[in-house]
Amino acid sequence: MREAKAGLPRTIDWVDGAIAIIDQTALPAEMRVVRIETTDALIEAISRLAVRGAPALGAAGALGVALAATTAEGDEADVYAQVQEAAERLRRARPTAVNLAWGIERALGSLKAGPGAVLAEALKILEEDAIANRRIGERGARLLSELGLDQVSALTHCNTGALACVEWGTALGVLRQLQAENRLRRVIATETRPLLQGARLTAFELSQMGVDHEVIVDSAAAFVLSSHMADVAIVGADRIAANGDVANKIGTLGIALAAAHAGVPFIVAAPESTIDPATPDGAGITVEQRDGTEVTSIGGTRTAPLTTPGLNPAFDVTPTELVTAVVTDERVLPGGRSQA
Amino acid sequence: MREAKAGLPRTIDWVDGAIAIIDQTALPAEMRVVRIETTDALIEAISRLAVRGAPALGAAGALGVALAATTAEGDEADVYAQVQEAAERLRRARPTAVNLAWGIERALGSLKAGPGAVLAEALKILEEDAIANRRIGERGARLLSELGLDQVSALTHCNTGALACVEWGTALGVLRQLQAENRLRRVIATETRPLLQGARLTAFELSQMGVDHEVIVDSAAAFVLSSHMADVAIVGADRIAANGDVANKIGTLGIALAAAHAGVPFIVAAPESTIDPATPDGAGITVEQRDGTEVTSIGGTRTAPLTTPGLNPAFDVTPTELVTAVVTDERVLPGGRSQA
Repeated sequence: MREAKAGLPRTIDWVDGAIAIIDQTALPAEMRVVRIETTDALIEAISRLAVRGAPALGAAGALGVALAATTAEGDEADVYAQVQEAAERLRRARPTAVNLAWGIERALGSLKAGPGAVLAEALKILEEDAIANRRIGERGARLLSELGLDQVSALTHCNTGALACVEWGTALGVLRQLQAENRLRRVIATETRPLLQGARLTAFELSQMGVDHEVIVDSAAAFVLSSHMADVAIVGADRIAANGDVANKIGTLGIALAAAHAGVPFIVAAPESTIDPATPDGAGITVEQRDGTEVTSIGGTRTAPLTTPGLNPAFDVTPTELVTAVVTDERVLPGGRSQA
Repeated sequence: MREAKAGLPRTIDWVDGAIAIIDQTALPAEMRVVRIETTDALIEAISRLAVRGAPALGAAGALGVALAATTAEGDEADVYAQVQEAAERLRRARPTAVNLAWGIERALGSLKAGPGAVLAEALKILEEDAIANRRIGERGARLLSELGLDQVSALTHCNTGALACVEWGTALGVLRQLQAENRLRRVIATETRPLLQGARLTAFELSQMGVDHEVIVDSAAAFVLSSHMADVAIVGADRIAANGDVANKIGTLGIALAAAHAGVPFIVAAPESTIDPATPDGAGITVEQRDGTEVTSIGGTRTAPLTTPGLNPAFDVTPTELVTAVVTDERVLPGGRSQA
């Protein structure tokens, strides 16, 4: 398995005729790489969130089609039918994951050219993702210089690291780039309730990086920013509307408000593909409500009374007025705060 | 044990020659009243947070002195020495709890008049707290009318209910008053990491009240306010500076910022004794840092890597500019947002 520069294997990769993933459900207690040799095993891994994060799911979809194509048996028509059937089942593993469907479609586009072409296309997706993240990182680190930040203490939210992607990361990729430039002083990571991607995954990556870091409860973000323990807040994005409004993990809006109040830059780092020109602004984005029991329990243990329901919006929408800039692999989009 | 009007016994009370407390560590799974007959048992209850909340700790301190006075043996000098020794040990149970020390001192002030006078003084503290909370509730409900809110959906943070006081509550007391006036539509309670007072205690009280309610992760507060699922945010206070800046549970500042952004009133409900004229403004308030393992673990289970420290500010300071009004048992103090 090839090593990503971060010192970890890639989050998802193709190794010796099968898919290899870092099992994120075992982190941070255990770093376990799982070999996936069947569509069923991949569906199971996606369903139990062993692989998660939009870019990683795009790679998983494409590699899943490649796995089906390279292991299918029979004549061309048989292979075609088996791959289409596998693709259909893969799509249903997480029907709301846009990137999963996108990766599946893109790999399927090469199916007529044969299994080898499907695998080549899937590997191209992985390479593109890795390259895009490096570009986001470099552009983001440059932007922070332009904003007058040399040595940087950063607040980040959720997991936008190598574990959400093929390697390197988006917002966390900017911090990796800063570290490579000896400019990263300290990172404060929110734990990111309800699923604790910050405490479990981002903290794991920061520990691996060997950078000074701490985890806070999500509600301490405003305190951290208002007391200038961080010079910048940097987050990822699930979807960015045409006007620059940003849909991202629940809690992002609160961090943006606190950053604006503290006069600290609020930077969004995401692949260009996250920008959705078909959505004019944030009002057009429907917020997904997830199962309330994610809120009323933690790690399977009930915290609230059984008579208390949980309300569980998966993300929120930050208006561009609160954004300093969006950094993608292609460009820097000034947000509404850039005029301030 | 006398019943508070909420349908629960008082959080702390004097029953048949001993102290009776609701054991808050057993909630919400079990409603358990513990009888406390010795200073050692009370110290143990305070230390393991079986009784918590500033007003409840004031009552605990006073009742602890009364317990020592009424159970001491020997002549007057013996009783005096035993009570002073018990008071000194009680103070050390939670040295940072100002109200605990205040309750102890106030009860000790009656010691020369004999054990009966000490007990009478302690019971007076309980009565005063109960009456103050009713007044806060009534004044808060009236203020919301004046702000144009008849039927109210409210967001609240941490536990400011009967369980933090002798009975009724401060911010949650305002909501109890609204319910008594048939004006309470819905309550959204933050879970309040790290110690989950919202999910465990506030949700328990709301369930007991039979009001429509939901628990959210703390970081969803900005979404709830910006989407106008709540008409008002109402919180308690640990300390209020002379200029109206408010120190309260970590996360309060973020809620105040989100309320201001959404144009939703932000109300602080607290006893007059919370206002500290000796502190000119929030800059003079040192934020207590608690043990980081409260952040890096939940209910004893580690969430973050062992190499990741937690940063755990216990409260934050909300500047008066973000406050619509502070409601006490004596008055309404307009905040900086009242001019908006």
